Amino acid sequence: MAAPSSSTCDGAMARSFRERVPPLLTDLYQFTMAYAYWRAGRHQEPAVFELFFRDNPFGGGFSLFAGLDDCLLFLRSFRFTDEDVEFLCSVLPATTDPAFFQFLRGLDCSGVTLRSVPEGTVVFARVPLMEVAGPLAVVQLLETSLLCLVNYASLVCSNAARFRLAAGPQRKLLELGLRRAQGPDGGLTASRYTHIGGFDLTSNVQAGFLFGIPVAGTMAHSYVTSFNSLEEVWPRTLAAADGDLDPVDFISLTKGWLSRVCEIVGAEPAKIREGELAAFLSYAIAYPNNFLPVIDSYSVGCSGLLNFCAVALALCELGHRPVGVRLDSGDLCRQSVSVRGVFRLCSQHFSVPDFNSLIIVGTNNISEQSMIELNGKENEIDVVGVGTHLVTCTKQPSLGCVYKLVEVRGKPRMKISEDPEKSTVPGRKAVYRLLDAEGHPFLDLVCLAVEPPPEPGVPLSCYPMGAQTSSVSVTPAQVRSLYLEAFTTGQVSHPLSSAAETRAKVQTSLQTLHPRHKRLQDPESYTVALSERLQNLVSELRRGSSNNSNFLLSN
Amino acid sequence: MAAPSSSTCDGAMARSFRERVPPLLTDLYQFTMAYAYWRAGRHQEPAVFELFFRDNPFGGGFSLFAGLDDCLLFLRSFRFTDEDVEFLCSVLPATTDPAFFQFLRGLDCSGVTLRSVPEGTVVFARVPLMEVAGPLAVVQLLETSLLCLVNYASLVCSNAARFRLAAGPQRKLLELGLRRAQGPDGGLTASRYTHIGGFDLTSNVQAGFLFGIPVAGTMAHSYVTSFNSLEEVWPRTLAAADGDLDPVDFISLTKGWLSRVCEIVGAEPAKIREGELAAFLSYAIAYPNNFLPVIDSYSVGCSGLLNFCAVALALCELGHRPVGVRLDSGDLCRQSVSVRGVFRLCSQHFSVPDFNSLIIVGTNNISEQSMIELNGKENEIDVVGVGTHLVTCTKQPSLGCVYKLVEVRGKPRMKISEDPEKSTVPGRKAVYRLLDAEGHPFLDLVCLAVEPPPEPGVPLSCYPMGAQTSSVSVTPAQVRSLYLEAFTTGQVSHPLSSAAETRAKVQTSLQTLHPRHKRLQDPESYTVALSERLQNLVSELRRGSSNNSNFLLSN
Repeated sequence: MAAPSSSTCDGAMARSFRERVPPLLTDLYQFTMAYAYWRAGRHQEPAVFELFFRDNPFGGGFSLFAGLDDCLLFLRSFRFTDEDVEFLCSVLPATTDPAFFQFLRGLDCSGVTLRSVPEGTVVFARVPLMEVAGPLAVVQLLETSLLCLVNYASLVCSNAARFRLAAGPQRKLLELGLRRAQGPDGGLTASRYTHIGGFDLTSNVQAGFLFGIPVAGTMAHSYVTSFNSLEEVWPRTLAAADGDLDPVDFISLTKGWLSRVCEIVGAEPAKIREGELAAFLSYAIAYPNNFLPVIDSYSVGCSGLLNFCAVALALCELGHRPVGVRLDSGDLCRQSVSVRGVFRLCSQHFSVPDFNSLIIVGTNNISEQSMIELNGKENEIDVVGVGTHLVTCTKQPSLGCVYKLVEVRGKPRMKISEDPEKSTVPGRKAVYRLLDAEGHPFLDLVCLAVEPPPEPGVPLSCYPMGAQTSSVSVTPAQVRSLYLEAFTTGQVSHPLSSAAETRAKVQTSLQTLHPRHKRLQDPESYTVALSERLQNLVSELRRGSSNNSNFLLSN
Repeated sequence: MAAPSSSTCDGAMARSFRERVPPLLTDLYQFTMAYAYWRAGRHQEPAVFELFFRDNPFGGGFSLFAGLDDCLLFLRSFRFTDEDVEFLCSVLPATTDPAFFQFLRGLDCSGVTLRSVPEGTVVFARVPLMEVAGPLAVVQLLETSLLCLVNYASLVCSNAARFRLAAGPQRKLLELGLRRAQGPDGGLTASRYTHIGGFDLTSNVQAGFLFGIPVAGTMAHSYVTSFNSLEEVWPRTLAAADGDLDPVDFISLTKGWLSRVCEIVGAEPAKIREGELAAFLSYAIAYPNNFLPVIDSYSVGCSGLLNFCAVALALCELGHRPVGVRLDSGDLCRQSVSVRGVFRLCSQHFSVPDFNSLIIVGTNNISEQSMIELNGKENEIDVVGVGTHLVTCTKQPSLGCVYKLVEVRGKPRMKISEDPEKSTVPGRKAVYRLLDAEGHPFLDLVCLAVEPPPEPGVPLSCYPMGAQTSSVSVTPAQVRSLYLEAFTTGQVSHPLSSAAETRAKVQTSLQTLHPRHKRLQDPESYTVALSERLQNLVSELRRGSSNNSNFLLSN
């Protein structure tokens, strides 16, 4: 069963956020560096960091950007308690100047400005997703927490979007990963961001409570195996849906249906499990309009399906509406086809039209690959439940976001590595998404923030990143600026979105993406390019660096 | 740098536990089943569930059991708030009897008894790790939360133990995974349980604060690249360690050393990065006894190593003690050998014995495989930092623990699946670990709880699980009972352990394990066997099930 709920996201999140992501939840070196900056009098220097990832996850052509709202709550609540500072005092070297701890006590993010791609946007490798500007020591201290909040949220959201693409638009997707996630909060984060990425339902009740995600679930095998005989069924009667007549003996009614079902499908009554029937009866009497049992605790064909049909037919006779069945093992496609066949047979033979709208839920260690295969085969599965492979992102369990310094005191900074992949792009930037005449994005242009934006219909030349080619000339039909100001002077700039709103944004953003970039295997790679001025700055700094690094001679 | 800290584990954990793991953090079907039990008047029936996993993780021969203390805190704090119940009211079908919500309001774990393998014990697939006994509806409700708390804790703890085995006992291991974990709490859980599994240090400050784990870390590349010239170094002087003399011009002192270092290693001064030297100087002036910079922001051989040696020699001249260097890219082994060579050369040439005790830290996307390779090659790495592969458990990101019903109302229950792997073992159990004459465990014996324990020196026959063989006869030299009572009548039975205590238990437990079960690749499989009486019960229930399931004839 599934039930929507009102979103209590903002209030509940904010209340517990400081406790969930305290400013000590970071790497120690952020504090040792902050101290060294402070000691050198550099802690207030204006600095700018960028957050990005170097490769699209799962061998795909895109990613989704998620975690921004959590970052904003983190910035808003970033403040050290006396207890935090005392602990730092005990951990940093004894020679640390006590005035530094006084400095930490007064610290907050009122000097920090965050510009960002909006939450739920399709993004690509190497595009800066967030720009964090503020006093050097503060923006350095934020690094690990921001990475932690963006990395998994974006990864699992992208994974969910891939499952959504693999499943096709019609099939409902149910997230079941709580028990396999990295602890309680890993499970909550997974439920939230897989919903945003395209899942419809979650089994996680707390996620329903906090984020308003529709929750679903009915029955485990333990419920079935906890029953042994029909003696355990109580109450034994059920009233008709219209409530006009006295309750009837529901067990006898169901037994009658069971004989008829066995007859029409040619099943052996001797193989039917009494405990399973008792479990189904009990559940149906408790929830006559939410009956969706798991039917493979023993044998689908010899017992579970027959027991389901008997109970469901009895429910229908009383005017109730059974919901469907869950298959949790074996070949889901083949079984779903047989199950649907028996539903149709019952519907026709007994003239019960409600049997045509029963749903079949499949849950059996589904991976992206098995979802693709399932989608390609004949099957009758309406809802797919996914747990382990979704929340642990088996195919690639980490996104690898990084946080790099690009400007200090108004001067562009660049890490010029021996490994060209690890070199960074200097300076404060603007990012524009260029769309073709059909409205598909075809290139993300990374410019210096001071440059004028590209104009629709006007050709421009730019330098694709990661390619050895020189410049290319492109003409956008439309131009979208990717950044929004998200946080400034201690305040979140826009109201936070609910999970449902961000989920809708994800689907809109994905819809405009051309299928060639969206396909799950061997996608065509999307171009991210530097503007001419930015490319010139890179070349200049590279040259400068090789001409001008010899301080022994120059000083 | 590393600093120990007092453990504030118990207090801080307990305070926030109810918020971190509320009783709504579970799958919806636990509530629909609980309602069906309640409706059928079965909710108070005494029931017993077992928690276990079916395969040792990472293709290994063992696992570690972790997460118990969190489960105990969860049981202790398990109580529904009015807000929780109101939410459930909105989510469960409208036909749910309101008296059920009244029942939930009064629910706690005072009727639950948990017997368990102690936290930090070496365990094997199919051995029941926890036995949860209590009222059917309550112990059913606990399922998802207990699985969530044990699954990842045990997995990441086992992963850490494998890294520890791969690294050898001497090398220090530093956990760096926070930014790549499943959100904030995933990162905290990882830091805690990797320490328990054998890591020495963490970069995660909050983990130090909550669990008393020694924290470590000094400098990121951004710190290095934030400096451009020696003009930025301030203060420019440093006093000698004994504090007797006036501070000296530390920049000039270091420049002098840099010329000498370049001379003895034959390096070109022209290739040295001034910004890097400025960063090192600044850091060394802030922390003269904790100087451990990252030396590969530009080029180890042409710049980073030379700058380090110059600053470190200047520190030594003033009586301070530099700590060492970090390498973060490239071939760590080869580089560490060159770096050590230069340290030795400096030590000899300049008669600076402290250069012989400098440490080399290596961090570069280390996996279990690369740790094994590293350990097999010539290298001079004293501390290895591991992040992504450790916390995401890339090799197998989920343990797959399950929670199965084994007894209701004193009657053993068994799931008899068409897939024999998925059948369960019925009844309440005791587990004994049998040791050979050398003190190595060689077999875990799963018995019925009512059976007398096996006796040292007395042969017994038992049935290895998962094997097609019939019984084997074994004679233990020693017998250890694996279970302890951990929770009863609403109370935790023993004081919770600190991370350090459990960590010590892990090493003791691992030490007794024979190397053939401990080796990382192709380990010999450890035998888990059923007692004769338990095997008889299984056979009896299988037979009973095939003879006695036809209710249509028998009723």
